[in-house]
Amino acid sequence: MNSNSASLGSQNPAPEHSESSLPALHAARSGNRRSTRSEATRTHILNTARNLFNEYGTAAVSTNRIAAELGMSPGNLYYHYAGKRDIIRDLLAEMIAQYAQHWEQGGAGDQVPGLDHLRQGMLHGSELAWRYRFFGRELVALLRADAELATAYRQAYQHRMAQWSAAAEQLVQLGLLQPQSPLPDLTAAVWLVTENWFTFLEITGEADRPDKVSRQLEVVYAVLEPHLTPAARQLWKDRDRDEA
Amino acid sequence: MNSNSASLGSQNPAPEHSESSLPALHAARSGNRRSTRSEATRTHILNTARNLFNEYGTAAVSTNRIAAELGMSPGNLYYHYAGKRDIIRDLLAEMIAQYAQHWEQGGAGDQVPGLDHLRQGMLHGSELAWRYRFFGRELVALLRADAELATAYRQAYQHRMAQWSAAAEQLVQLGLLQPQSPLPDLTAAVWLVTENWFTFLEITGEADRPDKVSRQLEVVYAVLEPHLTPAARQLWKDRDRDEA
Repeated sequence: MNSNSASLGSQNPAPEHSESSLPALHAARSGNRRSTRSEATRTHILNTARNLFNEYGTAAVSTNRIAAELGMSPGNLYYHYAGKRDIIRDLLAEMIAQYAQHWEQGGAGDQVPGLDHLRQGMLHGSELAWRYRFFGRELVALLRADAELATAYRQAYQHRMAQWSAAAEQLVQLGLLQPQSPLPDLTAAVWLVTENWFTFLEITGEADRPDKVSRQLEVVYAVLEPHLTPAARQLWKDRDRDEA
Repeated sequence: MNSNSASLGSQNPAPEHSESSLPALHAARSGNRRSTRSEATRTHILNTARNLFNEYGTAAVSTNRIAAELGMSPGNLYYHYAGKRDIIRDLLAEMIAQYAQHWEQGGAGDQVPGLDHLRQGMLHGSELAWRYRFFGRELVALLRADAELATAYRQAYQHRMAQWSAAAEQLVQLGLLQPQSPLPDLTAAVWLVTENWFTFLEITGEADRPDKVSRQLEVVYAVLEPHLTPAARQLWKDRDRDEA
């Protein structure tokens, strides 16, 4: 499995990690005096660790192995990170920052703000779920093992749920969504499908089949379709055609 | 967290493991000459291991710890199980057998066969997902570590998916379901909600809140509702009222 196969054909690929987008968890520990070169090294460490965690799981990957993969001495790695736990925390901070980026930009440039923004948000979320897929697989164990990580995750979860709900409310106001079920239940269903799709494909042994990966959006659409207005359905279909 | 809080108020609690219901994976290894007493000891070992795995995860629970919890010598445990891997395989076999039980019984005694059968199947599935919740959490890692376990799981998954699809087809024939989206996508969405609900609650820190546990059926209903005929919706509401 290779993280280069992560693309889901979104027109808005997740931007690479940039210092300005990092939340407090990362920024507080990293201080302000770090050089650009040191920052680049940390990014390099994080990317390498993420690829190894995705491939082998966090339990099987030691800091020594990460250092070896980077062609770096363990001592040099420890200059940047006290241990695996800190690397995992920074990877969560990275993922959270990248999730936030889409939703905080708003849908200002979209032709059909509400629906496009939601759809792009789902594709963006998919890419991140794939990019950091070791989190999806190991989340219960990781959160149990590190209370600070659990707090950061749960705060981000509350925040994202609120953003999803706001996006759904916006769709109602724009006359695109006419929910036939309670909106929080509908939001939870879409969340569960989006967040668990890749783990589901890994469990069923289909994670390397591109047709299965792209099916995620169809399953989400099966949940949403009956609640969309005819205008919104047409917009969704047009977008499907444009992307094909 | 206590496995006694597993009840979801279903009228059809999962029957305890019985030898006749075990699939080939278990039966082939356990042989035919085992005494009833030996069988009872194995059941006792499996129940204790399951509770420990649910509480602490499989990585943190050694066979010595399982033996200690049972007040049994490690040697006596090894007489029954060669190691933790074999215990995990038997637990999967148990879970698969219990899943199968509901669906293979059919809905013969139901007043409203199709809908009640599906609804009971979801509640039964929920109970099993909770009862064996370490599987839901650790599945990717466990299947990667044991090819035999992965094969058994994937066969059972294919089988269950086929049963769900058959149940959905039956609902269409009974005039209770009028799918507005492709049936396989709808089935996948319901599957993802049902299978991931407890892990979701653990991640969000809400696994010990009964109101959150029972909300699962509401989220599933949010997915299904627009596709049900008015008659089916009335039946579902009546059932909700009966159970309240």
